[in-house]
Amino acid sequence: MYTASQLLNNINNYIANLDFVRQPKELYVPIEYTMSLGGKRIRPLFLVMAYNLYKENIQDAFSAAAGIELFHNYTLLHDDLMDRSEIRRGKSTVYKIWGDNTAILSGDAMTALAFSYMTNVPQECLKDVLAVFSTTSLEVCEGQQYDMDFEKRADVSESDYLEMIRLKTSVLLAASFKIGAIIGGANQTDSDLLYLFGEKIGIAFQLQDDLLDVYGNPDTFGKKNGGDILCNKKTFMFIKALELANPSQKANLQEWILATNYDANEKIAAVTELYNQMNIREVCEMKIHEYYISAFDCLDGVKVSAAKKQELKTVIEQLMNRNA
Amino acid sequence: MYTASQLLNNINNYIANLDFVRQPKELYVPIEYTMSLGGKRIRPLFLVMAYNLYKENIQDAFSAAAGIELFHNYTLLHDDLMDRSEIRRGKSTVYKIWGDNTAILSGDAMTALAFSYMTNVPQECLKDVLAVFSTTSLEVCEGQQYDMDFEKRADVSESDYLEMIRLKTSVLLAASFKIGAIIGGANQTDSDLLYLFGEKIGIAFQLQDDLLDVYGNPDTFGKKNGGDILCNKKTFMFIKALELANPSQKANLQEWILATNYDANEKIAAVTELYNQMNIREVCEMKIHEYYISAFDCLDGVKVSAAKKQELKTVIEQLMNRNA
Repeated sequence: MYTASQLLNNINNYIANLDFVRQPKELYVPIEYTMSLGGKRIRPLFLVMAYNLYKENIQDAFSAAAGIELFHNYTLLHDDLMDRSEIRRGKSTVYKIWGDNTAILSGDAMTALAFSYMTNVPQECLKDVLAVFSTTSLEVCEGQQYDMDFEKRADVSESDYLEMIRLKTSVLLAASFKIGAIIGGANQTDSDLLYLFGEKIGIAFQLQDDLLDVYGNPDTFGKKNGGDILCNKKTFMFIKALELANPSQKANLQEWILATNYDANEKIAAVTELYNQMNIREVCEMKIHEYYISAFDCLDGVKVSAAKKQELKTVIEQLMNRNA
Repeated sequence: MYTASQLLNNINNYIANLDFVRQPKELYVPIEYTMSLGGKRIRPLFLVMAYNLYKENIQDAFSAAAGIELFHNYTLLHDDLMDRSEIRRGKSTVYKIWGDNTAILSGDAMTALAFSYMTNVPQECLKDVLAVFSTTSLEVCEGQQYDMDFEKRADVSESDYLEMIRLKTSVLLAASFKIGAIIGGANQTDSDLLYLFGEKIGIAFQLQDDLLDVYGNPDTFGKKNGGDILCNKKTFMFIKALELANPSQKANLQEWILATNYDANEKIAAVTELYNQMNIREVCEMKIHEYYISAFDCLDGVKVSAAKKQELKTVIEQLMNRNA
């Protein structure tokens, strides 16, 4: 059994040693650039940790782990283009440096690479692994589509939002656990439970991200507060605030939503103050806790020793407590 | 053994019955639209024909056939966006109707669907099928990148061009044959030979397309002549013309290449006349013939009866002789 930091070292080495620089350079340099920007590598970590619940020869899981990380980075690359996000991990995004077409095509090539690495698993589990991976790939697109659609809709409900973040974010974390478990030889129940564990943890992470966007410490969270408030993003907190507001608070919120000419800091402070009046922080924390508890219930059902699951629990706890 | 038109009927029915309209509609309607535009369906046809060289229960090959057609249509969808092509098969392209982001994301979803359908093959050949398919997916991106790069380069050689069209067009035809053969249970030599057959036929098809762009009958070819000449596309014919021109012809060609203010019909007529002086049509026809002969040499080596191969030969001959 390996510690998470041992696994992370191995994963980082494995990914750093993949040679993405081939011909034509114009296609591959942006891929190398994207993959060298780092990130927490939590999807490959989860995949290898799930594998390691069942087997010790972790090198058998690294190709699939690289596949899941390539896939994740491809979705970021295309999402940044669609959302016109100029900065990712402190650096210019691919479309900003090389233009739209390069971003489209390098992203497309990354999907092909992702499937190629994902195919490199033992023959007997290949079909199951690819069924999970291709279904997940499609669901992530559905999630991104909902996210873009919600920008233009005024009637996004709590369940709409939770379903969107499930598709856009959670299913890939869930798939990471499940694929690792399948390669490790887990039985169907265990791999399904690990999928559910990842799905719930993923939703908790995203709700936590939304919370930190408003209440996080900008020094440790790495982003300025209030980005979601400024662009009227229909997050769980926003939806809850509209739901819980009394008539005067609701009018006040609506005014800020429709405002076109305002001081950014003033809007953030005003909306945050409304959130505070309605205890939105606590409402959100309770929801996160709900998913968190329910996730660990799933993990408890997984038929491996508590000692083996402890490392996974510790990692999840660390990730949940970042910048709280 | 089925006739090509029986297979095509079956393939068209199978694809028409795939249900692409799911939620969110914004993601899936453009996919349904793209797949309903038709096209010759030659890739799925080749896949099923190669399969049918070995086995009769053709329904086992339809999912992979749908996968290859979805993949092909996804590349067209993204290429049209990158090339800003407004019309495809007589209809507006996806990005023209629904915008860039929909074109990116619906294309991404089509890749996921393509891999999903491609995974639905007998377990024992899945790894080989996916190895061919994921390698090919990557090569098609490389081909598109070279194609875009060549627009900005003045030094594209004959071999550069042939390699570009091999990657952009041929490898997917080659993969169609090879995947069909693998699913059909062909041995390694046969499936490799069928790959080479498709690769050479694909290059011959593309050279034929380039030829028809200049010399085809616009009524039967369905496009106006001279599109490639107008945009100075570095086709085989263009490269050969620059190579074979005498100094005065070369100066004349260069003048037309650099011209910014001209009558389109006049440019097409003048460049075509230069091609005629240098017998470029015959040079191109000879090259096509070379690939064609070499392709059939590969097919001859495939260890199935001549009777079984005849239907395939007939289809290829029909495709080569279209609008000649």
